[in-house]
Amino acid sequence: MTQLNDLVQILGPANVITGADADSYVEDWRGRYRGQALAVARPGNTQEVAQVVKWCAANKVPIVPQGGNTGLCGAATPDSSGTALVLSLARLNRIRGIDTDNDTMEVEAGCILQQVQQAARDAQRLFPLSLAAEGSCTIGGNLATNAGGTQVLRYGNARELVLGLEVVTPEGDIWHGLRGLRKDNTGYDLRDLYIGSEGTLGIITAATLKLYPLPVAQCTALVALNSVEDAVALLSMARRGFAASLTGFELIAGFCLHLVNRQYPQQRLPFEGDSAAMPWYALLEISDSESAEHARERFEAIVGEAFEAGLVADAVIAENIAQSKALWHLRESIPLAEKDAGKSIKHDVSVPVSRMSSFIEATNAALQARFPGIEHVIFGHLGDGNLHYNVARGQAFTEDELLSNQDAVYEIVHDNVHKLGGSISAEHGVGQLKRDVLPRYKDPVEMALMRRIKQALDPQGLMNPGKVLGPTGKP
Amino acid sequence: MTQLNDLVQILGPANVITGADADSYVEDWRGRYRGQALAVARPGNTQEVAQVVKWCAANKVPIVPQGGNTGLCGAATPDSSGTALVLSLARLNRIRGIDTDNDTMEVEAGCILQQVQQAARDAQRLFPLSLAAEGSCTIGGNLATNAGGTQVLRYGNARELVLGLEVVTPEGDIWHGLRGLRKDNTGYDLRDLYIGSEGTLGIITAATLKLYPLPVAQCTALVALNSVEDAVALLSMARRGFAASLTGFELIAGFCLHLVNRQYPQQRLPFEGDSAAMPWYALLEISDSESAEHARERFEAIVGEAFEAGLVADAVIAENIAQSKALWHLRESIPLAEKDAGKSIKHDVSVPVSRMSSFIEATNAALQARFPGIEHVIFGHLGDGNLHYNVARGQAFTEDELLSNQDAVYEIVHDNVHKLGGSISAEHGVGQLKRDVLPRYKDPVEMALMRRIKQALDPQGLMNPGKVLGPTGKP
Repeated sequence: MTQLNDLVQILGPANVITGADADSYVEDWRGRYRGQALAVARPGNTQEVAQVVKWCAANKVPIVPQGGNTGLCGAATPDSSGTALVLSLARLNRIRGIDTDNDTMEVEAGCILQQVQQAARDAQRLFPLSLAAEGSCTIGGNLATNAGGTQVLRYGNARELVLGLEVVTPEGDIWHGLRGLRKDNTGYDLRDLYIGSEGTLGIITAATLKLYPLPVAQCTALVALNSVEDAVALLSMARRGFAASLTGFELIAGFCLHLVNRQYPQQRLPFEGDSAAMPWYALLEISDSESAEHARERFEAIVGEAFEAGLVADAVIAENIAQSKALWHLRESIPLAEKDAGKSIKHDVSVPVSRMSSFIEATNAALQARFPGIEHVIFGHLGDGNLHYNVARGQAFTEDELLSNQDAVYEIVHDNVHKLGGSISAEHGVGQLKRDVLPRYKDPVEMALMRRIKQALDPQGLMNPGKVLGPTGKP
Repeated sequence: MTQLNDLVQILGPANVITGADADSYVEDWRGRYRGQALAVARPGNTQEVAQVVKWCAANKVPIVPQGGNTGLCGAATPDSSGTALVLSLARLNRIRGIDTDNDTMEVEAGCILQQVQQAARDAQRLFPLSLAAEGSCTIGGNLATNAGGTQVLRYGNARELVLGLEVVTPEGDIWHGLRGLRKDNTGYDLRDLYIGSEGTLGIITAATLKLYPLPVAQCTALVALNSVEDAVALLSMARRGFAASLTGFELIAGFCLHLVNRQYPQQRLPFEGDSAAMPWYALLEISDSESAEHARERFEAIVGEAFEAGLVADAVIAENIAQSKALWHLRESIPLAEKDAGKSIKHDVSVPVSRMSSFIEATNAALQARFPGIEHVIFGHLGDGNLHYNVARGQAFTEDELLSNQDAVYEIVHDNVHKLGGSISAEHGVGQLKRDVLPRYKDPVEMALMRRIKQALDPQGLMNPGKVLGPTGKP
């Protein structure tokens, strides 16, 4: 395509990809979204990103920024028109520097999350963002979607881990906002506007990240519970007793652990008898700045208190790192066991922690009323009010029957979330997947403000069109 | 004024104030800014705020939102034209609710910060925002300026303590964004855009705030140090050793403590001999979730380590709450002692912690070169990289001579801040005070983006004109 000659001039022929070579860039990793692209551009530094964007702006070519292509909502996949340029940040993968006195690191958008974590660890620091895709997702994508993960309870979402950004605007200008400051009150918070905007307002090319001290020890416990109410009360007790040492509090329905046990018999539950048949479990993790002994002592004190208060039916406290890992492995195996058992309908929702029990009760009931015999696969980050509330076919339906009712299931779940002041996308974002239902749940004033911001910062509507707002990307 | 009849209709005559009664609303508390107002409107709830704003929008009347009128940069004071309406949020002062299971509280903008802290404490929770004006500043003002304070090191700025907002837009629409969710990825982050925008994009009328467990014990230590480098190394050690228990780390120049001692001889330094004559001191505070004994033990362990490493020349660890308070009182008395000694030129700046020593050295030298004999009054929140770097006349100048050089002093200090990647307003905001110098230090791309957002959200330019951006408030 002669149109692409300019891009080849800027990036060299190896970094402008078309045809079959572009295949892996135009489909999301789960194969749910597939589009077409004019080409895939792979700039090698921020200047090249800016040049490519300037060219797109001048030629009215839409841009789909892409990191590790591990998103769950189709935000990094182009539409089917074939007019958009996929702009891959993969080659911007340098750790630019680590400042241990300031507890910050400067990284480029294309760095793999695991690479960022490791670089921090090599400097005796913790970069706490951690999620299932960490071996292939990029920090740029994590920031564009404000990723969550397992340590949000203590360290916050991706947003809370960023001090500064470098961004290429839709005109191809570079905003040099890589500040390593914990306090800076000199105007509007552009940083947090770009974070979570899914590439629709500009392209994050680098970030200054916060680092934390490495914990001296971590310890994990699994407790058996009679109810979600008890889990919520235990969370309160744990927050008070452990304060910021509490780095994980995962709620797991008994059904999920049995599913893991059924699919992977070698993974045994650490409970027997009644304790192995409880409706709910919680996995607690603490990170200690003193010692492994201190961590265990603290666990014994607080879990003991919970026993006395009648909140906990049984508990296992890991005696060593291997046992801690085995407990976490149970939790992490739920999505795999779920997948092996057949396709399910997934939700990534949040509600206030205080309404978690009402939410589960009402939503389970509403789904059973409409689809008797359907199964509820419920687990998530209770400490953040974030549930992965999934729906499986059970014995009552075939996979096809289940999936043909996907929209009805979504609506029942999301309507219940909305009624309780919750969010229909807690940590995965909007992308294409939830774009069209967003106005059903979002305050119209908020939608209008979002459209105005989109119009102000991307008046040509070229940045990731059809994502978040839509359907054309035009406000 | 017949023009005000509509407002009187909406709010009642008692809540539309003109003439001499409006006096305290048109001048800032330090008497540095004085303006004139068409009137002062005191709506009693969000609906009334919206009605007043709609009236202003229809009649092109500029609006100056005002909380406790305790700001330091003139953001709540109208200009001298007399055309603007001061909109006081003081009557929106209800705590709407506290949800202890969700660890959140919903408060109206006009609540006094101390009232918010107390309501949290009554529910056995901590709302950690704490600053000198807490007895009279309002939470709405704290959010509009993204206030900092003494606990930022552990809990973050005001921004980090907010989950949701209710905002009246410049058109008088109400954005119902009072979400109590720790995870919500459904679009652009409007919350953080309004926070810190100093009333130039809309009016915050209520907020959902994060609560934390109350610490079981707090303990304070004062240490004597040879250099800022040693203070930075001690901060690293303390962050690692105490992790999130470290809730305060204040750097204090020896000169400041002697100033306190000179002005208030009853406040004695807890050191004698060489230790009382060190160039630097640091005040450390830890908050413990176990016990006072544990807090002291931890202090002894970490301060002991610092002694061994040669970082600390001497140390006093408080033995009880009274001693902790006495140590904090020394720190808190610095601004008062400074004021008693005469007017000084104040700066609220931040630099990366790793550059703190270079900053102080270079700036002291540059000021001495230009104004020999001038005095440096340096203290601040080292943990956040935030210094109150103040300049006093000493014996070398009269007060008038000093103040007549204010702009030159500002420029020397701010230029040095800028060179080291710092911020000219760490926690006080921009307001009128720093509006005109902002473009000197801020990336032009960032300034342009800010203007576009202002234009998009306040196209009539009626919201707090001449603050942050200016001089007319028009982009």
